[in-house]
Amino acid sequence: MTATAQRATISKPTDREIRVERTFDASRDRVWDAYTKPELLAQWWGRGNKVVLEKMEVERGGHWRYVEHHHGGSDGFEGRYREVTPRDRIVQTFEWDGMPGYVIINTVEFNDLGDGRTKLITTSLFSNQDERDGFLNSGMEGGMNESYAALDRLLAKSE
Amino acid sequence: MTATAQRATISKPTDREIRVERTFDASRDRVWDAYTKPELLAQWWGRGNKVVLEKMEVERGGHWRYVEHHHGGSDGFEGRYREVTPRDRIVQTFEWDGMPGYVIINTVEFNDLGDGRTKLITTSLFSNQDERDGFLNSGMEGGMNESYAALDRLLAKSE
Repeated sequence: MTATAQRATISKPTDREIRVERTFDASRDRVWDAYTKPELLAQWWGRGNKVVLEKMEVERGGHWRYVEHHHGGSDGFEGRYREVTPRDRIVQTFEWDGMPGYVIINTVEFNDLGDGRTKLITTSLFSNQDERDGFLNSGMEGGMNESYAALDRLLAKSE
Repeated sequence: MTATAQRATISKPTDREIRVERTFDASRDRVWDAYTKPELLAQWWGRGNKVVLEKMEVERGGHWRYVEHHHGGSDGFEGRYREVTPRDRIVQTFEWDGMPGYVIINTVEFNDLGDGRTKLITTSLFSNQDERDGFLNSGMEGGMNESYAALDRLLAKSE
């Protein structure tokens, strides 16, 4: 199977949410593993930058904290798992050190398309519309597409 | 100065918020200290129960984590400071281990009433109305009044 370049679809279901849909050429089990196994996540999450996974307790109540290292220094991100339903759904909070206390709730759904592909639907819920729009204008789309392209490459090679 | 029993006033400014106003017979500096110094906070926050302050980094971006020990076991609470403006305002997130990932944003304002008393205004912002109402129905009012009464006692004796 070749990794076709897929485009992410971004929408705004409500004034506090961003919804991103993206299809991957890999089974749901493999996409799930790429999201939940530290040795795999570290290969795509940082879009080529080194990521140190300081904490990654993938279970309800567990904490996560990743530090991305780049030319300009480093950026820390952290949060906590609200729900982990294997191969199906993860709900977790997300906070960037640069805006401490501004918490985003991310719901990631893993949908088996039945043809060997998996559609990932990520819904990000913000505290209000300004925080949502600020995030949209921060260049998140570019970063996200780079992460997803890195995930494509990981999935293509680990077949 | 005697610590008069004060009543907290609870209101719902919006469908996602709870606002609590409470006056204390002590200067703003002393109420601020009781909120931000670990050795003082530990004396009132747990309403008589032992509280272990595992983390209390009172600065923007700092983390806090308190574990309250009681007959039934223990309860953990944690969050992060979004804003710390000395003697004036603290904004911090609040999460109970029993509902991981359900984050409340608490804003505490310290108002000097000019007569030796301090009015504390705490606004709690929830992600949605259901979470707000669930919290209101969880017995928070009783627990809060017990904490405030313990704070009254601390302020009366440390004069």
